[in-house]
Amino acid sequence: MREWITEIQNIVSLDPVWREKARERLRKQTRPEGSLGVLESLLERLVAIQKKETPAIHPRPIYVFAADHGVTEEDVSLYPREVTKAMVLNFLKDKATISSLARYIGSHVRVVDVGVDADFQADGRLINAKIRRGTRNMTREAAMTPEELNQALQVGWDLMQKAKTNGMKLIGLGEMGIGNTTAASAVNAALTGQPVELMTGRGTGLGDDMLQHKIEVIKRAHALHAKNFTDPLKILQCVGGYEIAAMTGAILSAARFSLPVIVDGWIVSAAALTAIRLNPKVLDYLFFAHQSDERGHRYILEMLEVKPILNLSMRLGEASGAALAMSILEAAVRIYNEVGTFADTGVPNRKDQPQNVSARAGRDRR
Amino acid sequence: MREWITEIQNIVSLDPVWREKARERLRKQTRPEGSLGVLESLLERLVAIQKKETPAIHPRPIYVFAADHGVTEEDVSLYPREVTKAMVLNFLKDKATISSLARYIGSHVRVVDVGVDADFQADGRLINAKIRRGTRNMTREAAMTPEELNQALQVGWDLMQKAKTNGMKLIGLGEMGIGNTTAASAVNAALTGQPVELMTGRGTGLGDDMLQHKIEVIKRAHALHAKNFTDPLKILQCVGGYEIAAMTGAILSAARFSLPVIVDGWIVSAAALTAIRLNPKVLDYLFFAHQSDERGHRYILEMLEVKPILNLSMRLGEASGAALAMSILEAAVRIYNEVGTFADTGVPNRKDQPQNVSARAGRDRR
Repeated sequence: MREWITEIQNIVSLDPVWREKARERLRKQTRPEGSLGVLESLLERLVAIQKKETPAIHPRPIYVFAADHGVTEEDVSLYPREVTKAMVLNFLKDKATISSLARYIGSHVRVVDVGVDADFQADGRLINAKIRRGTRNMTREAAMTPEELNQALQVGWDLMQKAKTNGMKLIGLGEMGIGNTTAASAVNAALTGQPVELMTGRGTGLGDDMLQHKIEVIKRAHALHAKNFTDPLKILQCVGGYEIAAMTGAILSAARFSLPVIVDGWIVSAAALTAIRLNPKVLDYLFFAHQSDERGHRYILEMLEVKPILNLSMRLGEASGAALAMSILEAAVRIYNEVGTFADTGVPNRKDQPQNVSARAGRDRR
Repeated sequence: MREWITEIQNIVSLDPVWREKARERLRKQTRPEGSLGVLESLLERLVAIQKKETPAIHPRPIYVFAADHGVTEEDVSLYPREVTKAMVLNFLKDKATISSLARYIGSHVRVVDVGVDADFQADGRLINAKIRRGTRNMTREAAMTPEELNQALQVGWDLMQKAKTNGMKLIGLGEMGIGNTTAASAVNAALTGQPVELMTGRGTGLGDDMLQHKIEVIKRAHALHAKNFTDPLKILQCVGGYEIAAMTGAILSAARFSLPVIVDGWIVSAAALTAIRLNPKVLDYLFFAHQSDERGHRYILEMLEVKPILNLSMRLGEASGAALAMSILEAAVRIYNEVGTFADTGVPNRKDQPQNVSARAGRDRR
């Protein structure tokens, strides 16, 4: 049990030899050096993770982790708690936004129920890993017990280990859970030490009054638990959510087993940041899909020195940003695998020798 | 002849009724209002251009306008002039970056030769509309004659009119032409009145010395022609290029015949800006694919109050940014056409009434 806590010490940094192989291939293709900007940096990492001459990103499933939150008792969302259940059913009926996106990009959605306040009928696309019908109310007690936290982490860990064994090449991570921007804000504020105000946004579209209320709710939770914020896992246990914990386990596991992961938005970033705090090498394996419209996300991305693939002011969740970014990443991989070289095509190369001056202009990570 | 100059007075602003229809449909789908950010704004315009309940974006060809430039005599590029020809052949052999991208997104590439310094064999994907084997050297004389300018404009105009007649639903515009960042900088600096230094970038990857030289070359051209910079078309004639002029005609024509256009990067933006100066209503029909790494592009986009779909520090051309943005736009259209409504799916809607407060947070145009 909790073998993963030792396993995460085995996460390795990316191999510089494979990074250089990727750069070399990009230089040889019929384009000005560095002209694909950030895409080149994404490819460099992807190749170094997979250690293959021709990177593959099929199959690449999208996992949507779903759970309810005790903090919804505090009236922090515009939507009733039942929406979590209803949206899970919507995913299974293929009528949600992520359903369209997954169809479009040729991915498939797996919904992982780690804590929805509902019972679902068996469905091939639903993974039942329910820990409890929602966390506890973080303003009154810890959101979860230490045992529940371990259970949630293990769910994510095991899923990615299995995904790797089953030949998955790339993972998209997203979530559904009314109240989970509140949990993510509480986690991100605690992890970064930034003021709750800076780390709390409008979620599904709160007006000014409700935003202020949400901030106060998170501050109350922080006041209750701050003395226990001694490490990232304690923070997760006190003010996180089952889906955030499960995604933390998934991200750690993906990094351990060299699976590239596309991180969706604000909530998945809370899981990513927790995982990074447990082992900073995790960052090498993460592709940040987009800068969410949620206040605070930009701060987290800048702190991590990460440039997200997209910046479209989206704030939906459901892995919607991850799906869009997946299509950009696939486009980049196709370019990498298919485009001809100067040598093969007879296109004259530049007059001088490549200088590598501007090739570093566009990077997704500094 | 030049009937288009009167025709462009018939370009119409987008219908507010159709814009509102689009907003209403987006509000009814099972998502928090406004949560798709910029995508919602793109959809609103697309629906208002097409005036269809379910917008269609197939077929949606990509046109790559190719031409050579007399100013390459002044040594403004790292690449020899022959690369224009070689890259056209590379496009026709399907070995270029845009070839991979077009295949991936299910588009097809048409290369429009308006001035390449080479003869090509007949090819179904090559449109031969060559005006001359490259423009004249703008530092010594006008890049083109008034007749050549009209001819180039007409090529683009006719192509888009025909595309509309043939049922095309969306157009991607890109270009190939060694030396054409120089021409685009000369045009954009003249149109905006901004200093040449601000409007001149590294093109395919110039070092500091060559960038300085490129700036001086453009300044010389400006000094020679400035007295003739009396209207956008004169600017185009003096310091533009055949591909930039043809794309200007294409953009005007697309707007006139209600065809949405995806504008690639720096060079296509010079054509777009020229067209907008001839009739500002053109802007409604344009979707700016990405913010190029080319210095000056950000200024142009901000001046037009446009938020591009992508910002990946790319600087390739070939319509590569347009192709990537096309896939994002298609994803948005699929969402619009497919996702279920609160009413149909039984997902509970928000507790209060929609306020439209945050729905305007993410827009591609202010």
